[in-house]
Amino acid sequence: MRIVVLAGGIGGARFLRGLKQAAPDDAVITVIGNTGDDIHLFGLKVCPDLDTVMYTLGGGINEEQGWGRTDETYLVKEELAAYGVGPEWFGLGDRDFATHIVRTQMLDAGYPLSAVTEALCERWKPGVRLIPMSDDRIETHVAVTLDGERRAVHFQEYWVKLRASVDAHAVVPVGAEQAKPAPGVLEAIAEADVILFPPSNPVVSVGTILAVPGIREAIAEAGVPVVGLSPIVGDAPVRGMADKVLAAVGVDSTAAAVAEHYGSGLLDGWLVDTVDAGTVERVEAAGIRCRAVPLMMSDLDATTQMAREALTLAEEVRA
Amino acid sequence: MRIVVLAGGIGGARFLRGLKQAAPDDAVITVIGNTGDDIHLFGLKVCPDLDTVMYTLGGGINEEQGWGRTDETYLVKEELAAYGVGPEWFGLGDRDFATHIVRTQMLDAGYPLSAVTEALCERWKPGVRLIPMSDDRIETHVAVTLDGERRAVHFQEYWVKLRASVDAHAVVPVGAEQAKPAPGVLEAIAEADVILFPPSNPVVSVGTILAVPGIREAIAEAGVPVVGLSPIVGDAPVRGMADKVLAAVGVDSTAAAVAEHYGSGLLDGWLVDTVDAGTVERVEAAGIRCRAVPLMMSDLDATTQMAREALTLAEEVRA
Repeated sequence: MRIVVLAGGIGGARFLRGLKQAAPDDAVITVIGNTGDDIHLFGLKVCPDLDTVMYTLGGGINEEQGWGRTDETYLVKEELAAYGVGPEWFGLGDRDFATHIVRTQMLDAGYPLSAVTEALCERWKPGVRLIPMSDDRIETHVAVTLDGERRAVHFQEYWVKLRASVDAHAVVPVGAEQAKPAPGVLEAIAEADVILFPPSNPVVSVGTILAVPGIREAIAEAGVPVVGLSPIVGDAPVRGMADKVLAAVGVDSTAAAVAEHYGSGLLDGWLVDTVDAGTVERVEAAGIRCRAVPLMMSDLDATTQMAREALTLAEEVRA
Repeated sequence: MRIVVLAGGIGGARFLRGLKQAAPDDAVITVIGNTGDDIHLFGLKVCPDLDTVMYTLGGGINEEQGWGRTDETYLVKEELAAYGVGPEWFGLGDRDFATHIVRTQMLDAGYPLSAVTEALCERWKPGVRLIPMSDDRIETHVAVTLDGERRAVHFQEYWVKLRASVDAHAVVPVGAEQAKPAPGVLEAIAEADVILFPPSNPVVSVGTILAVPGIREAIAEAGVPVVGLSPIVGDAPVRGMADKVLAAVGVDSTAAAVAEHYGSGLLDGWLVDTVDAGTVERVEAAGIRCRAVPLMMSDLDATTQMAREALTLAEEVRA
């Protein structure tokens, strides 16, 4: 069984951990990772979502915070601040710095991000094939009003520095229109037996991946079940501030509205949480098969069960 | 009093600490730093000698080892090794990495090394003006025979990795011929009241600085006392492996031979250690005023006294 997963950061990574448990032993899991939140810091290329997937599946993640490395220290960052060099709001640890140093060195040597990611994964052995959505630079910008002035900030500035404390007027994956899917992305989709959208952010994670020309079309035309899991439970994001960026694209923060946002042209099945069981009918009315199951990734067993439900729904769709 | 010092790493930095004590309160000390042992590691520009001067005078040096930062940890390096990325023989600590990250980021942004060094010194406030000998890339290579094959290795590979365990056939400051002195270097020499050669390596530290076209000539023509301190005491280098690279340029490892190597066209005064008092006559016969004084930088007082002797000898030369 060949499974393709479109993944953002924490939510995607945790779901993948469950999926590895739930999938048949001979399953091949290809993860198409969001790179829209990549950022250059201190001259280094940082890929937060790719690293979160890599560290989570490779056993290096800081479990409590969900991103960054375990047993981390912050001397490099302290020293950079002592030089007056910021930003200080982005938490890069010493162990994490090494990843960005290796990545930047390889990129500077001419390797595309997909090759660099493969090389980094040789150490972490995440048990999935992790491919960035594109080797081209795509940067998610968020239009906000700050001090009465409308301007666009990098997604990380919006998410991490501002903590989504102001409304997002628009979310723009700058560079996406000119970008091409990374080598292997379209092939993996075309050969997939099932395609999954984990409970990642529908706008800035899965949405950004779908904004790379060719990916949405390939998924719609793959002719295999496409099943998603709602990141919204009981009208609020399970984690993060998805409601803020959903509002920017005119989508309500409900499990049903997100399903309709993806649309039946893309999505065949949708899992909502049991607290949202009342919305199943609405989703199905939109032409998307829907089931209500527990969607809180509280531990590996719960997450594994969610992944099982997604695969089961995919089989139902196929049949 | 304007003092210009040509400095390598540990020896030069420690001498400067004494000189700051010995010099009049209104003295302006300009340090022309060796950059021939600079190296690119992990895509970062590392300037060991400049940093040793900066950390030593700024209070950040690891006193025991003489280079690198105090209270240092090595997580970044460990992680790089876990990625299979080396070299492992070069000891870059986490705090130290920050310096190289800031430097590389500024260089990539288009600032010359001299401007970057000035910016880094804004944090460290070394109490001297530290200028790299050149903004151009100069890399000291050492010709050696390894496994029966003659090849050239980077100075750091010779010094740190091989620990000068094989003979050096030649020492070549690659790129020096095309290099220009950094802004301020020739001006500082022209305006100097005294020029000092600390007990730094005469070949790969002071010698490399002198190899930058224009610097040797400017010193010779400055018309002010030029006084050096022997890095050789009792026929052996005080520290490091200067004998190895002296042999490569056909110079004996004696205080007198080093003075003659600099030559009376450049050097006006030379301090040898008291154990080498017997060599004073030979140095003076070469046209270089010579005194025998204690030359072991065992503590700040001893080093301050050495610097005082150097300034005194300069006044003798002037008179």
